[in-house]
Amino acid sequence: MEMFEVLKTRTDGQVLFAAIDNPPINLLGPALVRDLVSLIRILDKGDTYKVVVFSSANPDFFIPHVDITKIAEYREIAAQLVGEPSLALLFRRLSETKAITIAQIAGRVRGAGSEFILACDMRFASREKAIFGQLEAAFGQVAGGGAIQHLTRTLGRGRAFEVLTSSNDYDADLAERYGWINRAIPDRDLEDFVDALALRIAKFPHQGLMDIKERINAISLASVDDLRKDSELFGRATQFPETKERYKKIIGLGLQQYGDTELNLGRVLGEF
Amino acid sequence: MEMFEVLKTRTDGQVLFAAIDNPPINLLGPALVRDLVSLIRILDKGDTYKVVVFSSANPDFFIPHVDITKIAEYREIAAQLVGEPSLALLFRRLSETKAITIAQIAGRVRGAGSEFILACDMRFASREKAIFGQLEAAFGQVAGGGAIQHLTRTLGRGRAFEVLTSSNDYDADLAERYGWINRAIPDRDLEDFVDALALRIAKFPHQGLMDIKERINAISLASVDDLRKDSELFGRATQFPETKERYKKIIGLGLQQYGDTELNLGRVLGEF
Amino acid sequence: MEMFEVLKTRTDGQVLFAAIDNPPINLLGPALVRDLVSLIRILDKGDTYKVVVFSSANPDFFIPHVDITKIAEYREIAAQLVGEPSLALLFRRLSETKAITIAQIAGRVRGAGSEFILACDMRFASREKAIFGQLEAAFGQVAGGGAIQHLTRTLGRGRAFEVLTSSNDYDADLAERYGWINRAIPDRDLEDFVDALALRIAKFPHQGLMDIKERINAISLASVDDLRKDSELFGRATQFPETKERYKKIIGLGLQQYGDTELNLGRVLGEF
Repeated sequence: MEMFEVLKTRTDGQVLFAAIDNPPINLLGPALVRDLVSLIRILDKGDTYKVVVFSSANPDFFIPHVDITKIAEYREIAAQLVGEPSLALLFRRLSETKAITIAQIAGRVRGAGSEFILACDMRFASREKAIFGQLEAAFGQVAGGGAIQHLTRTLGRGRAFEVLTSSNDYDADLAERYGWINRAIPDRDLEDFVDALALRIAKFPHQGLMDIKERINAISLASVDDLRKDSELFGRATQFPETKERYKKIIGLGLQQYGDTELNLGRVLGEF
Repeated sequence: MEMFEVLKTRTDGQVLFAAIDNPPINLLGPALVRDLVSLIRILDKGDTYKVVVFSSANPDFFIPHVDITKIAEYREIAAQLVGEPSLALLFRRLSETKAITIAQIAGRVRGAGSEFILACDMRFASREKAIFGQLEAAFGQVAGGGAIQHLTRTLGRGRAFEVLTSSNDYDADLAERYGWINRAIPDRDLEDFVDALALRIAKFPHQGLMDIKERINAISLASVDDLRKDSELFGRATQFPETKERYKKIIGLGLQQYGDTELNLGRVLGEF
Repeated sequence: MEMFEVLKTRTDGQVLFAAIDNPPINLLGPALVRDLVSLIRILDKGDTYKVVVFSSANPDFFIPHVDITKIAEYREIAAQLVGEPSLALLFRRLSETKAITIAQIAGRVRGAGSEFILACDMRFASREKAIFGQLEAAFGQVAGGGAIQHLTRTLGRGRAFEVLTSSNDYDADLAERYGWINRAIPDRDLEDFVDALALRIAKFPHQGLMDIKERINAISLASVDDLRKDSELFGRATQFPETKERYKKIIGLGLQQYGDTELNLGRVLGEF
């Protein structure tokens, strides 16, 4: 198997288990984007894996958000696969690849972390340990990696507005009630539940699974144009003085470090 | 600030709190439509308010429905803003204005009252005191102010069919489970919850909030053509003999008055 | 009234109650499809029934799936009404007919059984006795009768993926949380609840109900092209060697008979 930088992988039959392990807090930066590009290229072949399970090696963070000091850099890496510097289009390509993808979530998934799990085919989360948020509004930005598209279609207009404009934290029970995830599962049962589901699906014929995937995607995936638009709005705002100032301020408060600000970011942004 | 006829307003920074106060029962008639036209014109400027919270000054009624004796009249007032006599198009304009709108609901929201809150960006309701209904089917009419569009997209086909054909009352817990509202909140906590959310959102940059709004609306708002069609079907039915007869009968039973018929309209319509 | 083969009917005013009674296990085969064709022709006239309630005469099975030994045969019967051999298009015609349709569900609804209830306008299920499943993935097939279209739109992308690729059983509470059904109702209350709702709706003017139905359908029904595509993918797979082999194996295990395999099909398919 291709070696990954920050994905720790193991296989069980045609199921690939990939744990994100990018200390200190699993930021989505160049290393993880490089790994995703490599992984999608493997999965696109459709000959090795039927199912992929993504989890985190870090108990507090799944993916807290992008590395805001390396936005241009990871975008360029995404462009190697999708032809333009857009995380939204990279995630769309993940949604289209030839495996069923499952996110097994404990810890924080915020910003592009939430957008990554939304690009997976299913999401199951630790009732006690998963925390969800879209924090872009607090910085004067739109969610540029697909959250607007997925959340509006799945949660409905009102709940999408709340999540996307509040920049607040949501626990797993509320995320389940809103439809952000398939289900909140007691933490002690989560791994067994996802393992069983992944292995079950992997017993079924690949062609049928891919036909189902193609038909669901035809209904539910946003167009490349819509995702490109969101991506460009996000990118444009990174150059706004007010956004830059807020980035600077939150970094001063400890963003991107393992500590109180990252652990309680929803609260911190409300006091901003 | 512009003076309103039936909206009692106060401001806190860039949040406008507007309580509907139109005795005896907060019917949606010419006065409230005039106020909404005025308010949308203020919000469209985008320079004063980031967030608007709508509530009711009446503990039993938020908006029970339109004043069925003044349909032609309030429609003409709506036309002053949207160019045609349609509540659906007025509400669509509200959904597009340059502020985040939140409905804080206690009491009854039925018919166009429900359509008004559906046109807001978010909805939070008193678990004990909010009651929801679309009563048009009982009169041989479609919901003409946008409910068909919003409810079908948000609740899904089956629940939209139930709500729209049953003309029954739904409590806040069921409304939450169906997705009609964001959340049912214990009555004692509702005001504090909404205040905190509104003030939180108002701290974030206006341009980002409006970009998010534009992108959510592009996915979730029904087209002008679809809303016009619903509006015309509603208006056409007001001229049907059976609809007129049912209007007359329900007015004889006490519709539009503060009393048992309005308080328990879901039940009354089932005995119709 | 026209005589049906496997629908046991009674009427109460303008409500038709139709119980499926096709021993041993209510398979969807030529007899039920003939009855549905006859029924749709009656309902299309729009002059006798406002509401139809479908239930099952069998306590364990509502419709467990199609008779997999008679796929070509029942498809040809469907073609007599819709012009092409497709259950998806027959169900779409049911969704468009001139009555409000309600499924009152106890027992198992899997595969095309689930697709039948999804084509009804509303679904209420016994909390204790209803079991739901889409089993096609286990055989290398897509759900060909409309489930992909309905479930993706109503449950959202993630939950649709789970249900459609897991081929597992879901109880009524989870089906309600996912939006597969309107509500799970305690078994002892289910019949009274549905009776009251059906009789209530039947009091309202027919034209208004049909206007509401036309407007909801315009938003929520999949196109004929999309359903035809699903239907063709399902049909094509019936000729795949792997699908044929799995059909043969499951029949050997007792499929289509009243017994453990049919009662616990979700579990059995996981051990396949």
